[in-house]
Order: sequence, then C-alpha cells, then structure tokens
Amino acid sequence: MRRGFGSDNHSGISPEIMEAIASANVEHALAYGDDEYCKHAEELFKEVFGPTARVYFVFNGTGANVLNIDAMCRSHHAVVCADTAHINVDECGAPQRIVGSRLLTVATPDGKLTPALVKTQLHGFGFEHHSQPRAISITQPTELGTLYTLDEIRALADLAHAHNMYLHMDGARLANAAVALGCSFKAMTTDCGVDCLSFGGTKNGMLMGESAVMLNPALDVDLKYRRKQMAQLCSKMRFMAAQFDAYLTTGVWQRNAAHSNRMAQMLYQSLKEVPEAEVMYPVKANSVFVKLPNKVWNALLEDYFFYLWDEATDVVRWMCSFDTTEEDIHNLVEALKKRLKAYNA
Amino acid sequence: MRRGFGSDNHSGISPEIMEAIASANVEHALAYGDDEYCKHAEELFKEVFGPTARVYFVFNGTGANVLNIDAMCRSHHAVVCADTAHINVDECGAPQRIVGSRLLTVATPDGKLTPALVKTQLHGFGFEHHSQPRAISITQPTELGTLYTLDEIRALADLAHAHNMYLHMDGARLANAAVALGCSFKAMTTDCGVDCLSFGGTKNGMLMGESAVMLNPALDVDLKYRRKQMAQLCSKMRFMAAQFDAYLTTGVWQRNAAHSNRMAQMLYQSLKEVPEAEVMYPVKANSVFVKLPNKVWNALLEDYFFYLWDEATDVVRWMCSFDTTEEDIHNLVEALKKRLKAYNA
Amino acid sequence: MRRGFGSDNHSGISPEIMEAIASANVEHALAYGDDEYCKHAEELFKEVFGPTARVYFVFNGTGANVLNIDAMCRSHHAVVCADTAHINVDECGAPQRIVGSRLLTVATPDGKLTPALVKTQLHGFGFEHHSQPRAISITQPTELGTLYTLDEIRALADLAHAHNMYLHMDGARLANAAVALGCSFKAMTTDCGVDCLSFGGTKNGMLMGESAVMLNPALDVDLKYRRKQMAQLCSKMRFMAAQFDAYLTTGVWQRNAAHSNRMAQMLYQSLKEVPEAEVMYPVKANSVFVKLPNKVWNALLEDYFFYLWDEATDVVRWMCSFDTTEEDIHNLVEALKKRLKAYNA
Amino acid sequence: MRRGFGSDNHSGISPEIMEAIASANVEHALAYGDDEYCKHAEELFKEVFGPTARVYFVFNGTGANVLNIDAMCRSHHAVVCADTAHINVDECGAPQRIVGSRLLTVATPDGKLTPALVKTQLHGFGFEHHSQPRAISITQPTELGTLYTLDEIRALADLAHAHNMYLHMDGARLANAAVALGCSFKAMTTDCGVDCLSFGGTKNGMLMGESAVMLNPALDVDLKYRRKQMAQLCSKMRFMAAQFDAYLTTGVWQRNAAHSNRMAQMLYQSLKEVPEAEVMYPVKANSVFVKLPNKVWNALLEDYFFYLWDEATDVVRWMCSFDTTEEDIHNLVEALKKRLKAYNA
Repeated sequence: MRRGFGSDNHSGISPEIMEAIASANVEHALAYGDDEYCKHAEELFKEVFGPTARVYFVFNGTGANVLNIDAMCRSHHAVVCADTAHINVDECGAPQRIVGSRLLTVATPDGKLTPALVKTQLHGFGFEHHSQPRAISITQPTELGTLYTLDEIRALADLAHAHNMYLHMDGARLANAAVALGCSFKAMTTDCGVDCLSFGGTKNGMLMGESAVMLNPALDVDLKYRRKQMAQLCSKMRFMAAQFDAYLTTGVWQRNAAHSNRMAQMLYQSLKEVPEAEVMYPVKANSVFVKLPNKVWNALLEDYFFYLWDEATDVVRWMCSFDTTEEDIHNLVEALKKRLKAYNA
Repeated sequence: MRRGFGSDNHSGISPEIMEAIASANVEHALAYGDDEYCKHAEELFKEVFGPTARVYFVFNGTGANVLNIDAMCRSHHAVVCADTAHINVDECGAPQRIVGSRLLTVATPDGKLTPALVKTQLHGFGFEHHSQPRAISITQPTELGTLYTLDEIRALADLAHAHNMYLHMDGARLANAAVALGCSFKAMTTDCGVDCLSFGGTKNGMLMGESAVMLNPALDVDLKYRRKQMAQLCSKMRFMAAQFDAYLTTGVWQRNAAHSNRMAQMLYQSLKEVPEAEVMYPVKANSVFVKLPNKVWNALLEDYFFYLWDEATDVVRWMCSFDTTEEDIHNLVEALKKRLKAYNA
Repeated sequence: MRRGFGSDNHSGISPEIMEAIASANVEHALAYGDDEYCKHAEELFKEVFGPTARVYFVFNGTGANVLNIDAMCRSHHAVVCADTAHINVDECGAPQRIVGSRLLTVATPDGKLTPALVKTQLHGFGFEHHSQPRAISITQPTELGTLYTLDEIRALADLAHAHNMYLHMDGARLANAAVALGCSFKAMTTDCGVDCLSFGGTKNGMLMGESAVMLNPALDVDLKYRRKQMAQLCSKMRFMAAQFDAYLTTGVWQRNAAHSNRMAQMLYQSLKEVPEAEVMYPVKANSVFVKLPNKVWNALLEDYFFYLWDEATDVVRWMCSFDTTEEDIHNLVEALKKRLKAYNA
Repeated sequence: MRRGFGSDNHSGISPEIMEAIASANVEHALAYGDDEYCKHAEELFKEVFGPTARVYFVFNGTGANVLNIDAMCRSHHAVVCADTAHINVDECGAPQRIVGSRLLTVATPDGKLTPALVKTQLHGFGFEHHSQPRAISITQPTELGTLYTLDEIRALADLAHAHNMYLHMDGARLANAAVALGCSFKAMTTDCGVDCLSFGGTKNGMLMGESAVMLNPALDVDLKYRRKQMAQLCSKMRFMAAQFDAYLTTGVWQRNAAHSNRMAQMLYQSLKEVPEAEVMYPVKANSVFVKLPNKVWNALLEDYFFYLWDEATDVVRWMCSFDTTEEDIHNLVEALKKRLKAYNA
C-alpha cells in the first residue's frame, strides 16, 4: 500500500526493533516474562520512570488501558475522562465489559481535561446509588493531537489525590509528547504524580508492544493474575521485552517521534497556503486535524486513505509516522490543492 | 538459557517465520486486519479448513479459547471439558471473567473426553436453576500429550449436535496432532464436525499468533466486536497474517511438528532403559510425562528447567520443541541416569 | 417518621396490597413462579399490555432495568439514554457490571430524549472500535417529572426500529404517567412500539414488586436463565404475583397515582404564592423540582427530609406519594414560608 | 395447592412475620436501609452474631451468596466448595457471571467438605496461570440434609485462615442446623471462625428476606456499593428488617425449625417400616433423601409434588416445612406404601 496518513500504526517496524527481535531469537528462554530479557527490560523501566515503576507488558493499547483501570478501580468505581478519550470511544466498551466500571465523560474544547472540568463529575462520594469517582484518565498527547503541560498534569494529579483518586495517563504516543515538550518520560509522569501509565511503542516503530506501568506502588496488587485472566499474558515475552529494550536504549523512540512530529509541523505549515483547509487544534504532536469541504475530502480519499474524524463537521485526521517523508507531505498538499481546484471550478 | 524441556514456547522463532515478518515490513498497510496480508491469510484458512472457515487472529491461546467460548455461549451456558483442560486450570479463570460461563469439568484417565464422560454432565436442560450445557471443549493433542482419533472427535461432535450444543477444539498444538495422525487439519476439524477451533502457531515456531476459527458459520456473529472488546484486536495485524501465511504455506508447521514429535518418541524410547522413570501416558505428540522419585526430579531441576506436573504423584512433564536436538535428548537421559545413580547410591 | 417528601418509596403498603398478600398466604404453592398466582398474573399482563407481553417479575427497579438491557444488548452494544436517566446515575453502574454495555448519554433540557438528540449518538455502525448502538432507553415519567406524549414515544420507537434498535421504557412510576396522560398502559407502551418495559409498583403502594415486560417477542430469549443468573428470581413468587394482581385489578394503581399526581399539582399551585420558589420543570406527575435560596432549603431540611437534586443550582426535589395529604402540602408550604421569612429578615 | 414435600419455600408466611410487616406499615420511613427498623435490626444481628457482625439485607439466597463471594474474592480468586453446593449447581452460574470467580468443586460422600478434601484444591498459590484459592464455602445444613459439627466447622476455618483464605457459610436453613445442634447461631458461626454468612429466613417462614453477614470486619469493604450494583438493594427495606426482627425475637425461627426438623425425623422413622425406601443420608435437619424404584417415585409424583434429586440413582428429596403436619407425613407414607404395593403386585 502507498504510504498515507491513515494512522501511525499503518507503518511497519523500525530496523532497530527488527534487529532486537532477531538478536533475541537464540536458544531458549523461559516463557511468560520469567526470562532475562524481561528482567532486564523491567530494570530499564525503573531507570526511565523511577525506582517505583513496575511494568506489565501487554499486547495492545486497549489491554494496557484496561489493566490500568483494573488496577485503580473495582466495578463500582468510575473513571473521569474526556468524551474523546480512546477508552471511551475506541475500545468497543472494553472497560465496561472487563472491569465493569463506569466512565464519567466530559466534553472538552481540545481533548484536554482541566481541574474545573473534572470537578463537574466529583460528587456523590459515599452515596451508594452512584458509581464512586476513583480515577482520572488523560491521554498524552490527546486524541486530538494536543498536549498537557507538566503543570497541567500536576494539577490533575493533585486534584485526584485530594479526592483519594488516581491519575492514569494513556501514553500510546508518549514519545511524541516527550519530544514535543522536550522533557523526559519521567518528568511527564512520575514526577507529575501520575499513578499509572499506558506506555506504548507500536505506533512509533515497534512490531507490537504496549505496557501498563504502575508508578504508584499502591496499585501494584495482584496484577500478574489480573493480566493473565484478561488474556494479556504473552508467552514468548522475551520478544516484547527485547523490542522495548531497543526502543528505550537505541534512541529510536526519540528519532522516530521527532521525525513524525516534524512531518506534522511541515504539513501544518504547508496548509497555511491552503485557506480552505482549516486546522482545528494546535499541532503539537504528529497529527493534524483539518476541516475541509465535504466534497473535497471525499474526493481526496481516492488519492489517500485517512480517517474522517467528525462526520458532522467534516473534520479529517492526518497522521504522520516515523516513515513519513517530506515528499509524502508535499504530495498530499499537492493532491489536496488539485482536489480543491476541481471543487472550486 | 540452555535449551531445555520446560515448554515448546521456550524456543524461539523459526527462520521461515522471521523471513515472513521481514518481508511484510515494507511500506504501509491498513491496521486491524484490513490489509492485503490479512485478506490473503483469511483465504488461506479457507483453503486449509474448508470454505466455511472464518478466522479471527488473536494474541494468545487464552484469547483464542475465550473468543471461541464467547462465540458459542452466553453467560448462562456451560462448557463441558476435561478437568485437565487448559481453559479450566491454566487461564486463571479467564472464561469465567470474560464470558461469565461455567465450566463443567470431568475427570478423565488420559485427558480425553468420551461421550460417556460428557453425558454425565448433560442434564438440567430447560431448568432455570442450572447453567445450560452448550458446548463441549476438547484439546487436540490433549494437555497430557494424548490424541483423539478422528472417530472419537466425530462421536463427540455428534453428541454435541444431538443436544443443540457445539464442539470446540483447543488446537494450540494442532500441528503435532496432524503429524501424529497423518491427516490434514481439515480432516481432524471441519470434516469431523468441529464447530470452532483455537488454532495456534506460537508453540511451533511462530513469534506470536493464535486464532479463533469459526468452522460453523452459525457461530460467526458479531465476533469482530467481541474480539475488539476483549482487547484481542492487533493493530499491525499484517505481521500476524504474514506469520500464519508462512506457517501454512512453507511447510514449516509440518517440519517443526514432525521434528518435535520425533524427539518425544526418541525420549520415550530412551526412557525404556531407565526403569525408575515411568512414562504415564501414551506418547503421541511432543510431550512426555514421567513419574520419578521425588528426590530425583528435584535434583534434576538443577540440570534442566521443566515443570512438575503433579505434585501429589511426582509426575513431571518434558516437552520437546522444534529446535530440540538428538543431543539434547541424549544429554537429558544421561543427566537423569546420573541423578538416579546418586539417588540409588 | 413524619410523612415527608423524600420519595414515593418512603410510604408504606396500600391496604389492597396487604390484603392480597394475606389472601395468598394459604397452603403451599410451587416456588419460582410455577404457581397459580403467577400464571394468573402473567395472563393479566397480557390483558393489560397485549397478547405478546411476557412478564418477568424481579425484585427491584434496577433488576428490571438490567434484565431489560440484557434482553436487548450484548456487552458490545450501547444504550442511548438521557444523562439524567436512572440507569445512568442511580444504579451504581449495574448495567456496566452485569451486562457490560456502554451507555451513550445525552444532555437534555427536561429529562426527555428526542429523535434529534438520539441521532447525535447514532454513528459508528459496523465499526468494530465502537460500541454498537442497540437500544434507546426512556423513563416515563422522566426522573424530572416530565412526560413523553404518545407521539413522542412513537417517534423514538420508529427511530429505534429504523436503525435495527429497540426502545426500552423505564416505567418505575408508569401509573403516574398513565393517569397524567389519561391513557391505558398499553396505549403508552405496546401501541407506541415500545419493545420492553420496566413496570414497577413499589413506588405506588406495593410492598415490593417490579417487572421486566417483553412486549416484542423477539426479545424473549433465554430470559428465565438470565433472571436467575442475576439473582433476581424470587422463591415465594406468589406473593409478588398477588400484589401485581391486586395492583392491576382493584384500581389501586389508578387511585394511588391519581392522588399523588393531584398532590403534586396542589403543591405546584401553592408555590405560585411563593415567588422565591422557582419550579423548574412542568409538573406532570408526582414530583416537583424547586429552586430555592441555598440557606432556605438547608433550613427547611430541619423540618422535612427531602433530596437536594442539584447541588450546583440549589434545586430540590419534592415527591408526593399515595398517602400524602392536603394537610401535608399545606404544612410544607407554610414551613417554607416561615423559613423564607427568616431568611429575608 | 395441596401441602407437599417439594420444598420449604413452597410454604407461606408465619403469622408472626405477617404481623411484623403489618406493624411496620405505618407512616413514612427512609428507603434503602436508612430507617429505624433497619438500624434496630442491624443492632439485633450484632446481639445474635457478636459485635463485629455487619448485616447486609438482600433479596434472595443467591444474592446473599454472591455478595459474600464478592466480599471475599476478586475475579482471579477461587472458592472451594462441594460439588453439590447451591452456589455450584443451583444458581445458574451467578458467581461466575457477577463475581467472575472460579469454583473449585470437590466430590463428597455426604455434601460435607473436610480439611482433607479441601486440601486437594490448595495448590498453585502464587502461580499466575491458576485462579488463586481464596475462600472455602460450606452449607449448613448441607444440601443433602447433613450437618457440620462445631469442631468440623472450626477445623475448616483454621485451614482457611492458615492459607490466608476465608470461610463462608451458606446458611439458607441455618435455623434448622441450630436447632439440630442445640447451639446458638453465634456458636456455629462467629465462634467457629466463620468469616461471612448467608443467613436466610425465607425457607423458614419469612415472606422474603436473606442477608449477607460479615463476621470478619476485614471483609466489610465497599459492600454497600457492591450490593447496590448487584441490584440487591431493597427500597422499602423496613419490611425486610421488620421480618428479621420478628424472626429473631419472637422465637419463630426456633419453633418453625424445630417443627420441620421433627417432621423430618417422623418421616425418617416411618420409612423404617418401608424396606424398599432407602434413606440415603443421616437425617439431621428437615430433609429426607430416599432411593426408590424408578416406577414408584414416578407414580408417587401423581400424589405429591417433589423433586427427583438424582436421576442416575433414583433418589428423591422430601422436604419438611414449618407447616408440615403429622397427618401430612402419615399420608405421604401411606401413599408410598400404596404405590409400592401396586408396583410389587
């Protein structure tokens, strides 16, 4: 398939990751995480996120999010999140089915929760008829490509802790956020009071590998059983650990994320010459949301695969990846211009 | 780690599979199964299992089993299985948590259900106080390394269908069974009336890849949502499809399984010279269960990693893999003899 | 406790209902619904709701709602409802835990869904990442004391059916709606295309008794097992059936509901003399929502128990019951005036 | 319906209980347990079971059992029970669906667990592939009408606690056990180390009322939310509390249970004259299990309703109730003799 802008998981595997898999493909290793690769990767996560970090490798982002929710909540608890959150709209109800919890969703202008928005959901504590608010979940960068600053994260963590709640961060694209903010993973998570984290690599060059990382040791209870029971325990886990090892130690996370961020910026800049294309949100990471005339994006779908983000408002999402090229950006903008020209004719 | 006999998932990835992953690592592909690799693999499953087959790739064997149970049962249904079945003892209660169903377990002499054994559980139909028997689940080869003949499978399918029930086969090691029986996958499944199948490749040389295969189209209802909601939908699914493609088309499934079966036979033959080692079940596939003096297997654990299968009876399991060598077998038997000698001294 | 305005389930049991229980307390009866009282009540429900109606008695309103959702939905489905719906805010997440489904909530001005509001949630059909909209749930009268007209119900049923969805009605206070609209139960439900109904009597003079009524026979699948598995199967069910029998045949449902509605109207009229008391919604059934100065409702709580409905806006709920007297209304308004006088002083 | 021997929940309501309901039917009371009747009943349970007892009223026995399991276990835990336990065979999989836990069932000669039988299930601690044994559940008297002595209960409690597990007692007929053993409720539960109890009254003369009683305060965590979320929170709870109050304070529990036990003894003695009727288990409480020729029990079903207990062995269950009369027993035995005579002719 032609390289496009559908999703950063449409791209393949970074060479560094492939090499790591090949290197781990020697002799035997204990299964289910009891091998040396996993032990080494677990240590690495402690280096990266701080000594309290305890990582649970899982298969995909939904698995990571659900294991994190399960660590924070029982079924009578509730999670406050943006109504655009992946856990709310893109997991086909996995949190409800597997954990049984309610999500308390909040409309946001830009995909970001604020203390004021969260507070609208913080009531009914102690009242048995209401699901009890127990966690706040944010996505960094958000599903709309926006970013929380460190202060904003810290404020939400403080709010959570003041109410005996936890703060979860969905970091399926955390590398893009770290590059954009110019900070370490730890600065954005542990140091801000995040209690648990979904940390992903698949969208940034890994074959497959996500993780639920407990930063607050109080959450690390019985999770090995919970992961297994959710069917998220990988047998040949050494190959997941080896990927994460390469991801974190070769600099590939940073190179890849920096590149895809830069491509998104280039696309954003190029769109300034296209007045009919309205960029909807600040472009902070590797996605660009653009409002286009209905017929134009429909026609453009013949040139490229991408997702219509909001049918009601004709907003489309263009996602840049670690292997997006400057030429790709150039070609997309040219194709758009051609479609607009035909439309305006 | 030294090659041992702990499990066939302690071994790595077959070269043919690694090549397939590398070959698929070009350009972009749609995620979540909408790519050409997946479409091709789906066709391949139809060739292998018959035109009604519909495959759902999932992450691991527990995922495959749970999706199959979910296809057959709602929570008020029950699944009849051997008490040694993987779904009963080795999935930490995943069927109970994710599907909510009961398992009706039956003690067996050799891990195999028979119509007579199943019939002990077939009562209470229509009685609302009892979970309704809805499925029979068998493992081929069984967790004890024994095999169902085609006639035995057919008899269980007939029994199931006569009671408006379904027959599920857990085929995490189906290749070993096919080689041992000298039959095709289809002959052992679709042609015998199996309704759905967990078909795995991870234990036989794949990096990671399992599947739930609906052979009875009546079961293929809403499963794409069910898989997603269970957190079993892979994003870069092309790499799973490519592995299965290579697995099925290069002959690697057969070569690997034939080899591990042969190694188990060699081990079994070698143990005939060791009177203190009592082989417990007919050796049909790639595992050998051996009863040893308690102190002997404990000592032998210093030489090799393997699982104690039954604490009460001092039975251990030795598993052969696609990369087990004749020398490995030789060395294991020598180590055992040495330990026995010390014990007898 | 002094009679108050906390809830219509703060009142006791109507004499007609007590007599029915006493009359059924003779000799033996089969348990779990296989007795003559239940068979008779089942026939009665067919007379009341039409010949397709199939009633399942359950213990409480949450049980009725959850059984109905379970009849319409599997866990990957979603239910569209008002954000004020009882199933959303007052059942501590029972639908999520027991059925595993998502609720798609919509903000409304008055507790009522409209086709336009529902349509905002009708997208993503066929997309496996999204919970599939499968049902619309409305409450009649609503949690805010407002009413759907027959045409409004029919419009929502038509919308549901046009999308292969179902319409559920939560009728915990259905008698109050029937009296207010001057129509039969059937006219408001079956005849409008409602597919299933939570029909309650507890809030209108019964000791305890709610029911899930399948009006669309397509929904009546395996529900006897589902009810049992949810722990909603009553053993001495004759006493539930006898209550419903008396409720439906002695006219007590109508007398009680007419009375409580009339008391609410009287309260509403009396409040017209109290300018500081702003009635929030049209008073159609037996509840009155009133906005009061914060200190006033706080002080009034010393005189009467009632619920603060919305902390943010200082709105309280006053609920009239079948045993509320004109004197009760008079006394409440006088107490309010006294508190206001003190406040204004 | 003619009085029979089908079940003790085929009988109605004791007069003392009816009076208690009528007495509570005055004025208003707060709903959901916040009323004076409930507070008084809660104190009463502390008197009866000791000061640590915390009672949660629920609707039925399944509700009580499931809430207790939920208090002891999360979904990755397992409950050891007899394979004849009500939670295993007669709740249509409620524990699996609502708690998601596994039951580890043990065959017993007489419905009673012993430490030796339980120990067969106590392995795999710490192994993530196995559900973790967390509770032992016994029924007192058992489903087969047998009894645990106080020492036997204590031994099971000690075993549980030695493994960081809990002991649950299903006491749907606890009054029959207390009468038979001549001990108090407390002596049989709290004093023996039982951690939580399902305490029922419905089978012994109440209209409806069961309870989950936490005897070990460590289990009393978040249960008010859990009960609500399971749809087991009664609105007009005063009528449940009033029943339990009368049950415990008027002596009706003892009179009724003593009577039904005595009727079972009378039946047992009468059957000694009927050699073809083989009584299967020691008759300790109010049930008698009898093996009869197949044609005889089939014919006798024309005279009386009762349950075939075991199809395979032609064992039927005859249950005595608080309203069973000596004449009833006489008539049953005469009817049996007549059927046997016809059979032998």
